[in-house]
Amino acid sequence: MEEHQINWSLINRVRTKNPIVLTLANLVTIDKVADSISAVGASPIMSIEPAEANEIANLANAITINLGTVNQQQIDQMQTILQMVPPLKPLVLDPVAVSAVPSRLKLAQSLLSKFHFDVIRGNASEIAALVDADNTSHGIDAGKVDRPIQVAELCARRFKSIVILTGETDLITDGQIIYENPFSAEMLTMNVGSGDMLSSIVAAYLGVTSNTWDACIVATVLVSAAGVLANRYSVGLGSWQVQFFDQLSIMDTKALLEFLEESEEDYLD
Amino acid sequence: MEEHQINWSLINRVRTKNPIVLTLANLVTIDKVADSISAVGASPIMSIEPAEANEIANLANAITINLGTVNQQQIDQMQTILQMVPPLKPLVLDPVAVSAVPSRLKLAQSLLSKFHFDVIRGNASEIAALVDADNTSHGIDAGKVDRPIQVAELCARRFKSIVILTGETDLITDGQIIYENPFSAEMLTMNVGSGDMLSSIVAAYLGVTSNTWDACIVATVLVSAAGVLANRYSVGLGSWQVQFFDQLSIMDTKALLEFLEESEEDYLD
Amino acid sequence: MEEHQINWSLINRVRTKNPIVLTLANLVTIDKVADSISAVGASPIMSIEPAEANEIANLANAITINLGTVNQQQIDQMQTILQMVPPLKPLVLDPVAVSAVPSRLKLAQSLLSKFHFDVIRGNASEIAALVDADNTSHGIDAGKVDRPIQVAELCARRFKSIVILTGETDLITDGQIIYENPFSAEMLTMNVGSGDMLSSIVAAYLGVTSNTWDACIVATVLVSAAGVLANRYSVGLGSWQVQFFDQLSIMDTKALLEFLEESEEDYLD
Repeated sequence: MEEHQINWSLINRVRTKNPIVLTLANLVTIDKVADSISAVGASPIMSIEPAEANEIANLANAITINLGTVNQQQIDQMQTILQMVPPLKPLVLDPVAVSAVPSRLKLAQSLLSKFHFDVIRGNASEIAALVDADNTSHGIDAGKVDRPIQVAELCARRFKSIVILTGETDLITDGQIIYENPFSAEMLTMNVGSGDMLSSIVAAYLGVTSNTWDACIVATVLVSAAGVLANRYSVGLGSWQVQFFDQLSIMDTKALLEFLEESEEDYLD
Repeated sequence: MEEHQINWSLINRVRTKNPIVLTLANLVTIDKVADSISAVGASPIMSIEPAEANEIANLANAITINLGTVNQQQIDQMQTILQMVPPLKPLVLDPVAVSAVPSRLKLAQSLLSKFHFDVIRGNASEIAALVDADNTSHGIDAGKVDRPIQVAELCARRFKSIVILTGETDLITDGQIIYENPFSAEMLTMNVGSGDMLSSIVAAYLGVTSNTWDACIVATVLVSAAGVLANRYSVGLGSWQVQFFDQLSIMDTKALLEFLEESEEDYLD
Repeated sequence: MEEHQINWSLINRVRTKNPIVLTLANLVTIDKVADSISAVGASPIMSIEPAEANEIANLANAITINLGTVNQQQIDQMQTILQMVPPLKPLVLDPVAVSAVPSRLKLAQSLLSKFHFDVIRGNASEIAALVDADNTSHGIDAGKVDRPIQVAELCARRFKSIVILTGETDLITDGQIIYENPFSAEMLTMNVGSGDMLSSIVAAYLGVTSNTWDACIVATVLVSAAGVLANRYSVGLGSWQVQFFDQLSIMDTKALLEFLEESEEDYLD
């Protein structure tokens, strides 16, 4: 990783360019996802009407498809959007609960066989399910898999995507190189929607760069840094959420670089 | 009540066993309900697609059916789930606004005539409506009824359920015994979704015990205790919500027992 | 404006009379909107089922139609409601994103041609779109228009509505008189749903007065005052939201008048 300089200035660029991010959203977390897109400086759009599919896809600079509360209406909407957009616009897939709900897995695999997604963001169980790796899943939450690095790499190679496998240690891989995120906050797991927010924030960064690798790293590190900083003065889930959104909304490139420098002693030495 | 020792250790047991709670959710409060399930240590799953009904019901350790934004799609989904699950899985009904919306009342009564619910959780007007007791309702909020204890007991006996009637004083009854919750926080009424959260948290406890009575008391006292503690340093709705979720996420059996002991002087002496 | 005394006591009247506000809601912001209605002292009801349309419209003292996630089911629901209610109940239209999504613009213009709305609340781009004024829109957010006052007046005259055009300076007009809100808080823009909340809070005030002009001013000033007060101790989006809901829930007529007096030196001198 030493030879590659990550372009942290993307954090400021999103705030300046204000890209439009379309999320086919999980209704459980739709409010948090919209706020998180807005907090990093992008503009959220959402829609649940298939007849609006063309118009909203045209508006968007990047698109995230989240399967969290997928339903027939949303499937109709995503078919229209996906047939229309590639290869013009960056696409992110969030395969929520495909490890637990067989029909969602079938849908996700069908989407992946027909369309190219620049990024797939899921927990270990979800990523394992996409490539039929053995895993035990527990509800919608992150299960554990035996060899997460290999699972992530396999998934990335199979679908020619960058995979973000989130968990105790977030892994980002294009199938060849692995980036291990040094930061993690347990509260990101208790807070429902942390993964959904990341998947849409990745799209915000894809909206201002063609460097998918950098967009994935910057978004993942930003979200986990906000989570770690929110830990400092929080009592529990409520106060953590407040400070998480505070950090997400005020963090600029300079502040993130300072956080990385301060943390180096704790994490990297 | 003296002879029955309530099993407060359920609070820790949910955090250890992490049961999966399916909520057919109210879209107004779906985010808060998911966070509240997660905060007490359980795993939330949600779905709005009838075709997923079997798969998600299979995953769940307990199920809450909330009529808050019920619609045809959700009715289809709940029919499939209800025909499949009893008597295998604990079921909670939250009859939101049946006192105000006649077609919801008809639906709730039809569900109750065909299926057995372990627990019914509603405000005074809603519980009264289910048993055709006189009441005046105001929107979706708690109306007052003349004899809430009798209404709750009648409802419990008619549907062979434990009834949690929430309001100024929460009542829990199996039709014979009444438990009156000594704690109440006015902000639980202003906060939209307090009842919906309780209904799904009850399911979390039902997921780890076959003692429905204890599950109802523990969940109700926990939620009201969190509400009372959140009052202490709050200015208004916003800061109350933050502290409510803080308390919900950090409260363990020991902390609740300490709260009960401290409060005895204020409430019970 | 000097000759007209605004009836600030509406703030207390809503808390006393507790009107029922029906919102055909934007699913992105439905939770915040329900909490905001409750915070100002009114009762929120929501529904997504067309078959409930008559029953819920009958319950409501005022109705807001928000196009934020409009879909066929909601269009069916609103047709039933709109054919039934006028001229009996106050109606507010929130034309979310009509400036960006052509099919929503067509829908909004069709609604406005068939039904009378007492109030239209939108950002500059949205209001401009309704009257086919030139504008450049960016996603769902406020674009800028060249002559916002003229655009708002034109819209008000064309649809015989009071128009609330929100932005850096909120404008309220009946087509003849203009009220310029002296308060604004940047965070109201970053927070997704500020406009949606205002549109439903306006309905809360319309539920207790036939003076539409006063209802619009009181609601708009109240929301912006809460936004300004929330700025004082906030770090970013998270803590701003907490204090915004705190202020919304505790502000009474006396507190608002004190805020206006204190602010006079800053804003009006």
